[in-house]
Amino acid sequence: MSRARQYLTQLLSTADIRVDGRLPWDIQVLDERFWNRVLRDKSLGLGESYMQGWWECDSLDAFFHRLLSAGLDQDACRSLPALVGLAEAVLSNQQTRRHARMLAKHHYDLGEDLFMAFLDPYHQYSCGYFRGADDLAEAQRNKLELICRKLDLQPGDKLLDIGCGWGGLARYAAKERGCSVTGVTVSTRQAEYARAACQGLDVDILCLDYRDMDGEYDKVVSVGMFEHVGRKNYRTFMDTVRSRLRDGGIFLLHTIGSTVSVHDLDAWLKKYIFITGMLPSLAQISLSAEGLFVIEDLHNLGPHYDRTLMAWHRRFRHAWPKLKGRYPETFRRMWEYYLLSCAGAFRARSNQLWQIVMTKPGTPQPAYRQT
Amino acid sequence: MSRARQYLTQLLSTADIRVDGRLPWDIQVLDERFWNRVLRDKSLGLGESYMQGWWECDSLDAFFHRLLSAGLDQDACRSLPALVGLAEAVLSNQQTRRHARMLAKHHYDLGEDLFMAFLDPYHQYSCGYFRGADDLAEAQRNKLELICRKLDLQPGDKLLDIGCGWGGLARYAAKERGCSVTGVTVSTRQAEYARAACQGLDVDILCLDYRDMDGEYDKVVSVGMFEHVGRKNYRTFMDTVRSRLRDGGIFLLHTIGSTVSVHDLDAWLKKYIFITGMLPSLAQISLSAEGLFVIEDLHNLGPHYDRTLMAWHRRFRHAWPKLKGRYPETFRRMWEYYLLSCAGAFRARSNQLWQIVMTKPGTPQPAYRQT
Repeated sequence: MSRARQYLTQLLSTADIRVDGRLPWDIQVLDERFWNRVLRDKSLGLGESYMQGWWECDSLDAFFHRLLSAGLDQDACRSLPALVGLAEAVLSNQQTRRHARMLAKHHYDLGEDLFMAFLDPYHQYSCGYFRGADDLAEAQRNKLELICRKLDLQPGDKLLDIGCGWGGLARYAAKERGCSVTGVTVSTRQAEYARAACQGLDVDILCLDYRDMDGEYDKVVSVGMFEHVGRKNYRTFMDTVRSRLRDGGIFLLHTIGSTVSVHDLDAWLKKYIFITGMLPSLAQISLSAEGLFVIEDLHNLGPHYDRTLMAWHRRFRHAWPKLKGRYPETFRRMWEYYLLSCAGAFRARSNQLWQIVMTKPGTPQPAYRQT
Repeated sequence: MSRARQYLTQLLSTADIRVDGRLPWDIQVLDERFWNRVLRDKSLGLGESYMQGWWECDSLDAFFHRLLSAGLDQDACRSLPALVGLAEAVLSNQQTRRHARMLAKHHYDLGEDLFMAFLDPYHQYSCGYFRGADDLAEAQRNKLELICRKLDLQPGDKLLDIGCGWGGLARYAAKERGCSVTGVTVSTRQAEYARAACQGLDVDILCLDYRDMDGEYDKVVSVGMFEHVGRKNYRTFMDTVRSRLRDGGIFLLHTIGSTVSVHDLDAWLKKYIFITGMLPSLAQISLSAEGLFVIEDLHNLGPHYDRTLMAWHRRFRHAWPKLKGRYPETFRRMWEYYLLSCAGAFRARSNQLWQIVMTKPGTPQPAYRQT
């Protein structure tokens, strides 16, 4: 037995993970190069060697849950945008910041059929809310309804949706609450898709950077976009939202959060998602909002992201036979690794999902928080 | 008209406050020394000159609401502990940190009759919760019930209450929830009072510094005490709570919060409450909890503190005829100034009141947050 194998086998056993064991979280090593690769490249090597088929695991989610609960892999792929980044890197093989927009477009252009295959009817590429819900579609409707309630959306309200994706929230708020919605995205394909999806509704989809917006809105919402802002831009983000929000308005931020402030990217992040993602800590979020916003409410939905990711994974597997003509086998392994490792990270509570409601200082509390 | 008077009159008018006007928030200046005093000593001079009877105002709360909403008095007495500190300073005239314990004792020894005269039957010297409540007693019961619910208190649960005051929460949790409660305070008089109040219940009151505790508890709560911890001790506080909390337990922190991080005390704070108080920002709280706790929930009850303080003020005024034999007129003016200026600060949303629920990383969400 190589020393690498000996060392890692021992390490995994402290998380009750066996090599070549029979339990769902145990791993089967099919290529002996695995050991040196992981020892050298850590989480990067773990992920890439999985994609290459050097190891297998019946329940990757359970594997990651154990790994992270034991604190074994502090550098591992704990972040959803990080792993989305992995997907982008594989699909586009771009790594510089200046290509962010191009990459995003490229990714979504390639992946539209993919996303539509595993997302819910509102195309929510963010955490659902499973309270009283049995399936993904219901959970995502619940989430949209929860957001509308926290924003106290009223007919005629002007709502700005920063990072509107395929327009699901815009469509819901316009249709169910009678709002006048402006959605913003940097992806032209997403914008086109969202426009078509919102046809006939009071929805305006703009394809531009949120910093280039103008106008004033009654409510502002941003769901699953702050993870792509980067800590150097947190203050700019908050400043921009404040400028767009009328006095007395409400802002809801829905973002994955890190339990610990990240001041630099780890090696894996540096290689694969330099561009796209960084998980904010609550300290970073609240510092960037200081003097600009009053924090009214914070709600941790982290465990719901575990269920969301597992639902996406089931749907992805189910859709794979139709997709595999256009995606290589490596892509399937990468995508499953992404969804399941993130599910494990939320299950281990390494990652959080926070909905944070804010108002401008000096204005009354939102109705949601008054009761 | 003196230049000081001219300048300050003009400044106040930007907050729609008139000198010698007839509206409730207008002020009547009875001693012309007021102008130079306020110009020189700012919030300190404002408060002291009020105590000296140099100026009057029908509704000090409305005056401060306007003042703070206009951002006029950034140094003014925005903080509850700051103003408690003012009371302590007047009562005891001690200003050094080493006398903190002695001062606290002295203050509460002198003031027990005072506090019992205006507080509710559970002696809650912290923000009530007025949802569905009409009076203070009901609001404080509501608050206690809300805390019990967030802590998911079950019969037999071991609860640690850090900063237990006169034992109201300990009594409630033991009586209504069947918990085994340990309360901690640094005031011997409070400890004695709390012991008497909790007689016959499963409550243990300890008179010691929370850092000197041992043992392990199912739940930990701290209400209105973190304001006295000081930012250099925030991490120690969190470390200590974590050590006392069993894995899978729940911690609830109930504290006044500042919209902006305070890195030093202002002149008024330095003179009067060097010892007792500092309002934490959310950035400071969350940074001090990093890696130790997962933030599950944050609930802003700030506007309820406005109502609580106004209720205290009404009760204090009503009780004054019985109290005035033992307290000088200056004390009455100081106390009213304290209660009403703080009410105004919460109304202007300069101050926040946060209940924050936390768990150790890797443990499930509390039942309160799962639903």
